[in-house]
Amino acid sequence: MKSPVSRTLEALHRRYAGLKEGQVADYIPELAKANPDHFGICIATRDGQLYEVGNTRQKFTIQSISKAFSYGLALEDRGEDHMLAKIGVEPSGDAFNAISLRPGTGVPFNPMINAGAIATCGQILTHDGLSRIDRIREYLSRCAGQSLSVDEQVYRSESTTGHRNRAIGWMLRNFDIIEEDPEDIVEAYFQQCSLLVTCTDLAVMGATLANQGLNPLTGERAIAHEYVDNVLGVMASCGMYDWSGEWIYRVGLPAKSGVGGGILAVLPGQLGIGVFSPPLDSQGNSVRGIRVCMDLARELALHLFNPSAVPPPALRRSYNASQVNSRRRLPQEALRMLRRFGERIRVHELQGPLLFSTIEPVIRVLVKQAPYCQHIILNFAHVPAVDPVSARLLAEFSQSLTDSDSNLHLCHAGSFARTFMEAGIPASRIFATEDAALEHCEDLLLGDLLDGPIEAPSVTLSACHLFRDCSETDIALLEAGLQTMNFEAGETIIHSGDSADAMFIILSGQAEVLLRVNGNHQQRLDVFSPGMSFGEMAFLDASPRSADVVALTRVECRVLSREFFDRLGLEHTGLQAVILRRMALQLSERLRHANIEIGALRS
Amino acid sequence: MKSPVSRTLEALHRRYAGLKEGQVADYIPELAKANPDHFGICIATRDGQLYEVGNTRQKFTIQSISKAFSYGLALEDRGEDHMLAKIGVEPSGDAFNAISLRPGTGVPFNPMINAGAIATCGQILTHDGLSRIDRIREYLSRCAGQSLSVDEQVYRSESTTGHRNRAIGWMLRNFDIIEEDPEDIVEAYFQQCSLLVTCTDLAVMGATLANQGLNPLTGERAIAHEYVDNVLGVMASCGMYDWSGEWIYRVGLPAKSGVGGGILAVLPGQLGIGVFSPPLDSQGNSVRGIRVCMDLARELALHLFNPSAVPPPALRRSYNASQVNSRRRLPQEALRMLRRFGERIRVHELQGPLLFSTIEPVIRVLVKQAPYCQHIILNFAHVPAVDPVSARLLAEFSQSLTDSDSNLHLCHAGSFARTFMEAGIPASRIFATEDAALEHCEDLLLGDLLDGPIEAPSVTLSACHLFRDCSETDIALLEAGLQTMNFEAGETIIHSGDSADAMFIILSGQAEVLLRVNGNHQQRLDVFSPGMSFGEMAFLDASPRSADVVALTRVECRVLSREFFDRLGLEHTGLQAVILRRMALQLSERLRHANIEIGALRS
Repeated sequence: MKSPVSRTLEALHRRYAGLKEGQVADYIPELAKANPDHFGICIATRDGQLYEVGNTRQKFTIQSISKAFSYGLALEDRGEDHMLAKIGVEPSGDAFNAISLRPGTGVPFNPMINAGAIATCGQILTHDGLSRIDRIREYLSRCAGQSLSVDEQVYRSESTTGHRNRAIGWMLRNFDIIEEDPEDIVEAYFQQCSLLVTCTDLAVMGATLANQGLNPLTGERAIAHEYVDNVLGVMASCGMYDWSGEWIYRVGLPAKSGVGGGILAVLPGQLGIGVFSPPLDSQGNSVRGIRVCMDLARELALHLFNPSAVPPPALRRSYNASQVNSRRRLPQEALRMLRRFGERIRVHELQGPLLFSTIEPVIRVLVKQAPYCQHIILNFAHVPAVDPVSARLLAEFSQSLTDSDSNLHLCHAGSFARTFMEAGIPASRIFATEDAALEHCEDLLLGDLLDGPIEAPSVTLSACHLFRDCSETDIALLEAGLQTMNFEAGETIIHSGDSADAMFIILSGQAEVLLRVNGNHQQRLDVFSPGMSFGEMAFLDASPRSADVVALTRVECRVLSREFFDRLGLEHTGLQAVILRRMALQLSERLRHANIEIGALRS
Repeated sequence: MKSPVSRTLEALHRRYAGLKEGQVADYIPELAKANPDHFGICIATRDGQLYEVGNTRQKFTIQSISKAFSYGLALEDRGEDHMLAKIGVEPSGDAFNAISLRPGTGVPFNPMINAGAIATCGQILTHDGLSRIDRIREYLSRCAGQSLSVDEQVYRSESTTGHRNRAIGWMLRNFDIIEEDPEDIVEAYFQQCSLLVTCTDLAVMGATLANQGLNPLTGERAIAHEYVDNVLGVMASCGMYDWSGEWIYRVGLPAKSGVGGGILAVLPGQLGIGVFSPPLDSQGNSVRGIRVCMDLARELALHLFNPSAVPPPALRRSYNASQVNSRRRLPQEALRMLRRFGERIRVHELQGPLLFSTIEPVIRVLVKQAPYCQHIILNFAHVPAVDPVSARLLAEFSQSLTDSDSNLHLCHAGSFARTFMEAGIPASRIFATEDAALEHCEDLLLGDLLDGPIEAPSVTLSACHLFRDCSETDIALLEAGLQTMNFEAGETIIHSGDSADAMFIILSGQAEVLLRVNGNHQQRLDVFSPGMSFGEMAFLDASPRSADVVALTRVECRVLSREFFDRLGLEHTGLQAVILRRMALQLSERLRHANIEIGALRS
């Protein structure tokens, strides 16, 4: 099946393939040879998906589009302060080949005009035996995700006719903006402009800028993270020469065009666009390229200011410990307390990237709830990114909580755990799973309410839930008929997949139910304490065991075998009915709780 | 408890309160009277939350910040084409008071320089008996969320000394950019600049721009939606005069400053910032204002290009009909079929705003899965916004599916249903709830698999799940002991809250379990068909009924009362045990399914 995204690009290509306006650049003979019918459109997403239509693999020279990237390389070599002292970042209001140097200082207005680009080229260092053009070529190749080469014929043609650019070079040398022989620098500049790219390369280079400098195809770091915004900034304010203001007004994407017929546009954080079509308008921008970008921006709503491109508040859902509890089974008294006071423990699942404007509404809710709860758990399982700002704001909120004797706990923080610890959240408050965090908070709350730790003392058979309605005679009968089994901590009591011919009653110790997820990883479903029974479900319907049960401590069990149970049915029907009634009651209680949990999860 | 956001602003205020650089504007005596120590910072979020510190309620004159808004009003009066013909949108590279008209045409470079602002003022229509300044005042008041007034003394002072602006007015008249008496227009311009605002007003006006023109405090439409991007566009490219390029490079927010000491900055879709501090630098921008904006942008990561401010892909979670089913209880054979072939029905819950870059990865998954499934259900319960682009792409995908005999169904689309229908998705594919969509898809799939519709024929007592292990004698005993009850469609069989002294067995018809959510709204938990029983849980533990059960069709029931059940325990223990065993089995099966559902919901 064809993607509707591809269909959109195809329709756009059909719409403008017949447009015959504009002239192929002819200031050098090599460019004049370009085929005016060549026409390609490519979108590359931030995760490396390509959508292509037309001549997207046709090579052409990159020309001025290279200026944005060589500026990035110069920033990495020299830093922002040095570069701002050498070259401004103000739009000049002039055409691309105007000399536009600030009076007195000779500082070019910006790096996107020829003077600024030649000055930029002059700041790039030669090292490791690599010349300027070697380094520029390598840098742009990393951005494109493949090795680019210079079109020697175009380069020689540019060099033969580039007298105006040589004049600019010497003018920059005159003002000491360039401190070396300008001839070499201007030659490197001509070579840079003569690098061969395809429309797809441009889209990938754009996606690399959209993806904070990481090439989404190769995963390689192509542009230092800290300079991506600077490159996008000059593209936004000066990328389309003296049409830059109108471009931002009408299209709204940082972009750069070249006289080879290419246009590269970027929607930061989202995607890169490459368009190739050689015929140019009077400002030197590709005619079809401009039309395609304007239509794409409108039809796909790709605008820098598009406010729907802002993630919604990060609160995914909230519940409290009267609705959802840790997976272990707690004594009746503890459960009763949690039903009643569980609101003092609040769980908030967060979602989406955390940044100021998504975490701010969450913090507003937390600040408001703070006086009414003792323990707050934030679950980051559905958070793909945490910026340092939101980590810092949460750490500050956590500190205020601690001052008022409450606590913030984090879980499923994964690789963000480090960010939070660096922001000042104690490692002891960061839990691997929500279950572990809930268990910890429940223990603290119940410790306060029940005046002491929750204990799980050993019980006798008559105190077990299943046998609570039994007479003394019944208990004696059961004592005689049930087998005793002991398990060491870590020992598996039930293996998932095994057939079930018994159920288990715990007299002392604790055991957990583990579900194998994707082969290895184990998820805790439940914890059983003395007095509880397990294994009823498979026992009842004779299906295979659905999960492992593993002893958490030393465990003493009584085992109710099917054989004994069937015998009860024949010889002691009343006792069997009493046990079945308790079994049904216990299942009903668990189902009731499961339904509450489903309700909370669905909300 | 104090919000960490407030703390951040307070720290920023402390940092710069002592900074003594800059000079209060003194070109008119009224402005020279400003107190250089006044200093306020305010953030207004897109949902109207205010964070304020310092002199945020001190009034001062808006000055050039008004230019951005009067440009919005002129656009609403005259449209984009007219305005672009009168006033450019290119940065001039010149200072704010330069005349900067394009040679030949006299078109001012942009609306943020004085010439462009006066020309803009000249385009504003007078109507409904309202003068230009009346209309400007009303427009800005709607943006601020309160009535603004002109500072008459500042206005007279501006008017007395504003000869340069009068010269500009006449020059614009000379080029027919202004077609009326320029004196009146220049006076309106002086009044516009003399409107009194507070720092908080600026933040709210910024938040109005951030919120697509809706004032977040009043909820009122202040700026026509279609011109918000134009206003932000000129602020981004020309808002800070000849420091605009550097502002976008360093701060990265569309902004506008005024010589009254105010700066207004906008993070589109997110928030507005107002800063007020009268001392100005040589470019006429507030010294503290610039520092605060630079620090805020860095400390809260508020940058237009911040890629983490992009919502993540919209796929929240996915499951299929072998894991999650509609709430009705299906016959065993149908359930078995769904366990086996349920993957042909896929449910995808979406999240976050839908725009090209969040829906594109979803469409990629859908296109890939399309050959393997017959029914796709998209759940929009967690989607706050759907842009027309994503609606169109989904409609096109839906069309391709139909061509290959599969179907796309939508649910919980709420107010977006209209958007989807307009995009071409048939109303018959849009369901109120996921349950309804699932039921519909299950019926279609089971119809194919079982060669006919799912029927729910009447049953006799011996065919009921609960009594399947009973002998003929037992059945006769039950026939005699169970009461018969009939209910009409819509009649309530069980009222939530009632005490439970019976359970029900359905012989014919269907009934649904409804949970009252927030008073009125009802959520379907389950549907029962002939042969099934309900009401066991409350019956077993004698707790009140937890939900309503309502007849969907005419229903014939048998009622098992507690009295009769207890009597069985005494007189027919074996029969009671048989029923209890079936009851436990049934609960166990439901619990097993609830656990699968919890697993899918937690994934």
